[in-house]
Amino acid sequence: MKKHIFNAGPSLLADEVYESAIKAIQDFDGSGISILSISHRTPAFDAVMNEADALFRELLQIPDNYKIFYIGGGASTFFYEVAANFLGTKAAYVNTGVWSKKAIKEAKRYGEVEVIASSEDKNFNYIPKFEAPKGVDYLHITSNNTIYGTEYHYDIDAEVPVIADMSSNILSRPIDVSKYAMIYGGAQKNLAPAGVSFAIIREDMLDKIVRDLPTMVSFKTHVDNNSMFNTPPVFPIYVLKESLKWLKSIGGVEEIYRRNVEKAELLYDEIDRNPLFKGTVEKDSRSLMNICFVMAEGYEELAPAFMEYTKEHGIVGIKGHRLVGGFRASCYNALKKESVEVLVKCMQDFAAKYAK
Amino acid sequence: MKKHIFNAGPSLLADEVYESAIKAIQDFDGSGISILSISHRTPAFDAVMNEADALFRELLQIPDNYKIFYIGGGASTFFYEVAANFLGTKAAYVNTGVWSKKAIKEAKRYGEVEVIASSEDKNFNYIPKFEAPKGVDYLHITSNNTIYGTEYHYDIDAEVPVIADMSSNILSRPIDVSKYAMIYGGAQKNLAPAGVSFAIIREDMLDKIVRDLPTMVSFKTHVDNNSMFNTPPVFPIYVLKESLKWLKSIGGVEEIYRRNVEKAELLYDEIDRNPLFKGTVEKDSRSLMNICFVMAEGYEELAPAFMEYTKEHGIVGIKGHRLVGGFRASCYNALKKESVEVLVKCMQDFAAKYAK
Repeated sequence: MKKHIFNAGPSLLADEVYESAIKAIQDFDGSGISILSISHRTPAFDAVMNEADALFRELLQIPDNYKIFYIGGGASTFFYEVAANFLGTKAAYVNTGVWSKKAIKEAKRYGEVEVIASSEDKNFNYIPKFEAPKGVDYLHITSNNTIYGTEYHYDIDAEVPVIADMSSNILSRPIDVSKYAMIYGGAQKNLAPAGVSFAIIREDMLDKIVRDLPTMVSFKTHVDNNSMFNTPPVFPIYVLKESLKWLKSIGGVEEIYRRNVEKAELLYDEIDRNPLFKGTVEKDSRSLMNICFVMAEGYEELAPAFMEYTKEHGIVGIKGHRLVGGFRASCYNALKKESVEVLVKCMQDFAAKYAK
Repeated sequence: MKKHIFNAGPSLLADEVYESAIKAIQDFDGSGISILSISHRTPAFDAVMNEADALFRELLQIPDNYKIFYIGGGASTFFYEVAANFLGTKAAYVNTGVWSKKAIKEAKRYGEVEVIASSEDKNFNYIPKFEAPKGVDYLHITSNNTIYGTEYHYDIDAEVPVIADMSSNILSRPIDVSKYAMIYGGAQKNLAPAGVSFAIIREDMLDKIVRDLPTMVSFKTHVDNNSMFNTPPVFPIYVLKESLKWLKSIGGVEEIYRRNVEKAELLYDEIDRNPLFKGTVEKDSRSLMNICFVMAEGYEELAPAFMEYTKEHGIVGIKGHRLVGGFRASCYNALKKESVEVLVKCMQDFAAKYAK
């Protein structure tokens, strides 16, 4: 039976990307060597890095005064590294859930952290409104919240540098990169297998590093060495490049955004229409990537049966995070509309059987 | 033409390991999901982690009071993390080349570093003798030096905790793990593609962490969370597990050591016998993993021709590091004896043509 993978991450890649990954393991670029065994200090891998760079820039229209770099480790590594590099006196954070909280926790080691807005009062089911602060080293946001299913639908205007963790919605929608001083994230949702994280950083930020840091912690090291101060995660970066190539081939961010909206609308419409289910997130904060819903009042006891029913139809990974409960369908870039249709059909058939 | 890959790292994996990697990308463990897209929070990935743990323990006879963990990033990350975790007042380092120096440089941020022995006087072409120090937080060594081709042929006896960077010779020879407080390394030489590093740590060291650290920097985080505080590098860890499985299948560390000695002797014997070449390392410090040699006096100008000649025979990656010059044949676990034989034959044929 065909599987429909709604995992929250690591997540699906496009079919073409799996194929490229396999070909490169068999023989990278006609070299007779596997991508798993090539030296990163070779023109062929330089070409991979350069192609990834060019594609990233083209797809997100990244201005020339930004640099892209990669690190091993994940966004959790960036949580403390961002503060280690840039938090001299005080930084502002918006608290939109678990990942924001982790970033805030790590930042507090390095200076004062002001939480300027939070949606904790309603179990993080909305993106709070806030005035961008002044006089802080930076403002930090989490652009999409995988656990709670909320997402910023706009870029942030601020005088201070805006730093965004975009782990879970990078390249899923158009953004105005020029409004951010730094965008970072783990790549294992929309771009790559687990094992590589990316950063897009405005060059002037490299002159604003506030303390002397271990070589691997300073962002300057990675920019100055084109992410090759030490051996980078070669294979995950190769797959990332292949994902970027795939994204360009289908029409870029504009097209994937159209598809993501289409998939999300399909599912949210069913959630809103179907008497057995209800969404957990305020409508204007709903994530295109992680769609959270629970059984409606009076139907709570049907949750395990619905889970079982979806499994029988090949659906994988829709159990909600324990902090929200219910269901979470993660609809990252590579998820096909067909998978959402199967889920919606399950919801409809289930309602036909059980609606009171 | 068949390629013979002598890359210094990332390096060759066993044929069976490439095959397993490809199979797992197509369908991990019969799940219908690619290893690149599985959730790390699943019983199937727990099983991978547990199998890797059991194999590592069996192959190196790791005592029960040691824990194994993995991080994204490489040994360069461990250079500062080791000191951040354990350097309270003073640590002793042995300087055997570039990687030792980098470890020393990062350690100096955290406390006093005493370099108790160095082979810098002879361009690092030997492993210096030293008395293990007392009264320091730890003693740090680099067990194999990829650039200079030197290797410790013995474990270190010391009263203080011994911490060893074994990036480039882990599992290539029997070691007595109980003599070390911590062994760490990048896994991209003998175990895995680039993107994962390992550590084997004696449990009592976790109570000796000298400062409050960012969550991702504290070794306790990774031990307490079984390397899954955040998303681990799933695919590199899977491949690492497959390499361990392969190593066990051929007879374990004892058998690979026999093979590694056999390969190294083949090549060192030719270097010593052949009038056109000479080794760069003192005989009792010669590495089994990285075999360095240069053109003998009077034959220096033949270096480019020899390089070209080996290329014509499918040999890849034997250019010496710029700090040593000449040639470096890296003979990691997965390199076949046949490849060394091809190289030796090249040396012999070349000498037959050019020996004066």
